[in-house]
Amino acid sequence: MSGQKIIAVVGLGLIGGSMAAALRGFEDYKVVGVARRQETVDYALRHHICDEATTDPMEVLPRADVVWLCMNPKGIVRYLDEYKSVFKPGCLVTDVGGVKTAIMEGAKVLPETVDFIGCHPMAGTEFSGIEHSFKTMFQRAHFIVTPRAESSQAHLDLMSRFAHYIGCADVITTSAEKHDAIIAYTSQVMHIIAVAVCDDEDLFQCRGFEGGSFRDCTRVAALDVGLWTQLFSMNAPALSKVIERLEVNLHAYREAIDKGDEGFLAEKLAWSANRKRQMNLPGPGQVVL
Amino acid sequence: MSGQKIIAVVGLGLIGGSMAAALRGFEDYKVVGVARRQETVDYALRHHICDEATTDPMEVLPRADVVWLCMNPKGIVRYLDEYKSVFKPGCLVTDVGGVKTAIMEGAKVLPETVDFIGCHPMAGTEFSGIEHSFKTMFQRAHFIVTPRAESSQAHLDLMSRFAHYIGCADVITTSAEKHDAIIAYTSQVMHIIAVAVCDDEDLFQCRGFEGGSFRDCTRVAALDVGLWTQLFSMNAPALSKVIERLEVNLHAYREAIDKGDEGFLAEKLAWSANRKRQMNLPGPGQVVL
Repeated sequence: MSGQKIIAVVGLGLIGGSMAAALRGFEDYKVVGVARRQETVDYALRHHICDEATTDPMEVLPRADVVWLCMNPKGIVRYLDEYKSVFKPGCLVTDVGGVKTAIMEGAKVLPETVDFIGCHPMAGTEFSGIEHSFKTMFQRAHFIVTPRAESSQAHLDLMSRFAHYIGCADVITTSAEKHDAIIAYTSQVMHIIAVAVCDDEDLFQCRGFEGGSFRDCTRVAALDVGLWTQLFSMNAPALSKVIERLEVNLHAYREAIDKGDEGFLAEKLAWSANRKRQMNLPGPGQVVL
Repeated sequence: MSGQKIIAVVGLGLIGGSMAAALRGFEDYKVVGVARRQETVDYALRHHICDEATTDPMEVLPRADVVWLCMNPKGIVRYLDEYKSVFKPGCLVTDVGGVKTAIMEGAKVLPETVDFIGCHPMAGTEFSGIEHSFKTMFQRAHFIVTPRAESSQAHLDLMSRFAHYIGCADVITTSAEKHDAIIAYTSQVMHIIAVAVCDDEDLFQCRGFEGGSFRDCTRVAALDVGLWTQLFSMNAPALSKVIERLEVNLHAYREAIDKGDEGFLAEKLAWSANRKRQMNLPGPGQVVL
């Protein structure tokens, strides 16, 4: 065995597969994938998603300098508990989970010798599974990190170099609680909107009448049910509040439309459109071809 | 003057500019743009958006074989009334308006010698003005037509050839009333969602935390206020009903999340996600580079 350092990517699904592929070639590390099924390991090796891959965590975790947990949130929490005494002393464990409070809480089981920095790369698609992974997934995405007070500067720097290497736009450092409160708005409620729109009785009559706004708004509705059930449930109070605020804002638009006062409606639209313009965000997200 | 036939595109904004550019070279027609401002005419000619362009409708309308009205809906209705006796006998007048009942009603002022077929190409962006127009705008878009009972087959065929030439995915023929009812759902409420999302108190705190779903869902929020005030107002009853249904569907999701029953939430999500999958729509709309 060479003296190469090891990044273990555990869970080779949509995100894990993309992360492994994006990390290949990083500095003097090799990327070793860990999957439950041999079929996934074979796929990963055949498609050069990892340098090596295995179904046996015990083969790689005790030697890994970085462990990137890419399962769903509950799977991450379970894994931390199950392998807490296996991780190599001095290593960095991180993750990709879309909720951070529960995961940071789960990471408390780790021994003092193991560093944990929560991570949420703001990227993904409505698909799941390694066959939909692609190594450019994280390009121009925000890379959110939620360190612990005791996280080492060396590991924080390493996280930044990872973010840069996989093409992220920036590194945002925040607390788990703040992350979860904001993500309820920027990501979770967008998924609730998408599914709620698809609940409409007119859905199947609208073929041939949909344009870009419909496709964009409902794109994420075909979501991974298991994953999103966890994400929504583990952030329920924050998400519930955001949905309620959206109901109020939609209702205000309905009243403005019912009122039949075009001047009033125009003012209201101008106010909202101006808020959007102030956001000055990049246009449509990356395109998956 | 040559024997070339003439398509007059009236109103060289985002849609009119794109339509003129997309139509250039169609069969043995030349495309003549009509704009209010000389500046727009100059821009159109400098960028080869039209074969010819003028600020004077009287110069082209009496000779035009096809007149494509590309203003906002009220502008189209006013124009039909103002120029009803100027259009060339036997010509086809059409439009691009996002509401059709009011426009088909407005077209009743035309003399019997002038054919009118309503049209709504399901394409556009959140920008406005000729400087944002692009000739590939209509590629893969639905091309909806609302003919009158007395529309000639020759003109219907011509509309289909236009749709094909500008790259539309298909031609959907329907009534103005059905168009307006469905469009309230597939397009108008998507715009209401986008502005309502931007009304949220967390909007400006979410920079750095937004991903593809947020960008996609709010893309159209920076809308053309004058245009959308008209579109919403001219279709208010249908739109109001769709917003109300969305409020109900969102509320049901909020209740499911508050309930804390993961099995129930998973079932609900699976049901909605499956509806979306059944739609089997193409992915993200065309990308504007």
